[in-house]
Amino acid sequence: MENVQTAPVVTTPEALLAHWQGHRRLTRKVIQAFPEKDFLSFSVGGMRPFAVLAMEILDLTEHGIRGIVTGSYPEVHELPHHANNHDRMPKTQAAFLAKWDEVTEALNELWAQIPATRFQEINVAFGQYENANIDTILYFIDNEIHHRAQGTVYLRALGIEPPAFWDRY
Amino acid sequence: MENVQTAPVVTTPEALLAHWQGHRRLTRKVIQAFPEKDFLSFSVGGMRPFAVLAMEILDLTEHGIRGIVTGSYPEVHELPHHANNHDRMPKTQAAFLAKWDEVTEALNELWAQIPATRFQEINVAFGQYENANIDTILYFIDNEIHHRAQGTVYLRALGIEPPAFWDRY
Repeated sequence: MENVQTAPVVTTPEALLAHWQGHRRLTRKVIQAFPEKDFLSFSVGGMRPFAVLAMEILDLTEHGIRGIVTGSYPEVHELPHHANNHDRMPKTQAAFLAKWDEVTEALNELWAQIPATRFQEINVAFGQYENANIDTILYFIDNEIHHRAQGTVYLRALGIEPPAFWDRY
Repeated sequence: MENVQTAPVVTTPEALLAHWQGHRRLTRKVIQAFPEKDFLSFSVGGMRPFAVLAMEILDLTEHGIRGIVTGSYPEVHELPHHANNHDRMPKTQAAFLAKWDEVTEALNELWAQIPATRFQEINVAFGQYENANIDTILYFIDNEIHHRAQGTVYLRALGIEPPAFWDRY
């Protein structure tokens, strides 16, 4: 542990993973709350359907956490959520949920491999975003909260009550 | 510093404040992006207008950070964003922005008074939410991201391009 910066604990790697997975459980419920056709195609104000927003969340989580661990990221234009690659997205709501669960496991496994010193190191994510890794991770989580919240407005516009914001179980 | 838990740093109090204030700068831009009448009254799917969502964000920030520092919180039903108290909300978009800037200063001043050990302590927020203070703080930030994102859908529905999610400056 020499050369490791120490200070009173604000949060821990374990707590941050639990926080993220709690948000991911809620996002999974939001995916499930949509009728399948609306999940795949409904939107408000010309925005992307929730399936594409969910794909963006999946891409950033899966390739983001792998990048945090390995330092190696694909470019954003290579990912399924990118407008040119939607043919590589899951085709059904059930396939999205299966992919979601696969990424949940991958996140747990990869998170356990993050060296304790990695959070404060500065790296370039997805070929262009240079930040401390903790800020990159918070960006991934915040981006999920942001797009999920947009999905809750789609649900309200469809007359469907979204899962509660505090429901992370 | 005796009896203070230490470990490799995931984040610091200073970095977490900067993260929150960055989100608050973006939320301020989202408030400004609305035409005033739409800020006060427009919504999608029967949801609350963005003025009420912004009031909730202001209430949780102002009374939340004071509670983190002092351990003393009002009850949620006493706050201006509560449905019974909307007569105590600012009446104009300019008055909301003035209140926003006042809370920005209060957050900076109160944050500096948080004892380093407070983040991991467990307290009851707003009379009912028992959590480690770090989780309470993350809830305040996440709740802001969530409701601001709903506001971005209102803007799109109005034909207005929202400020970019990464624009925290």
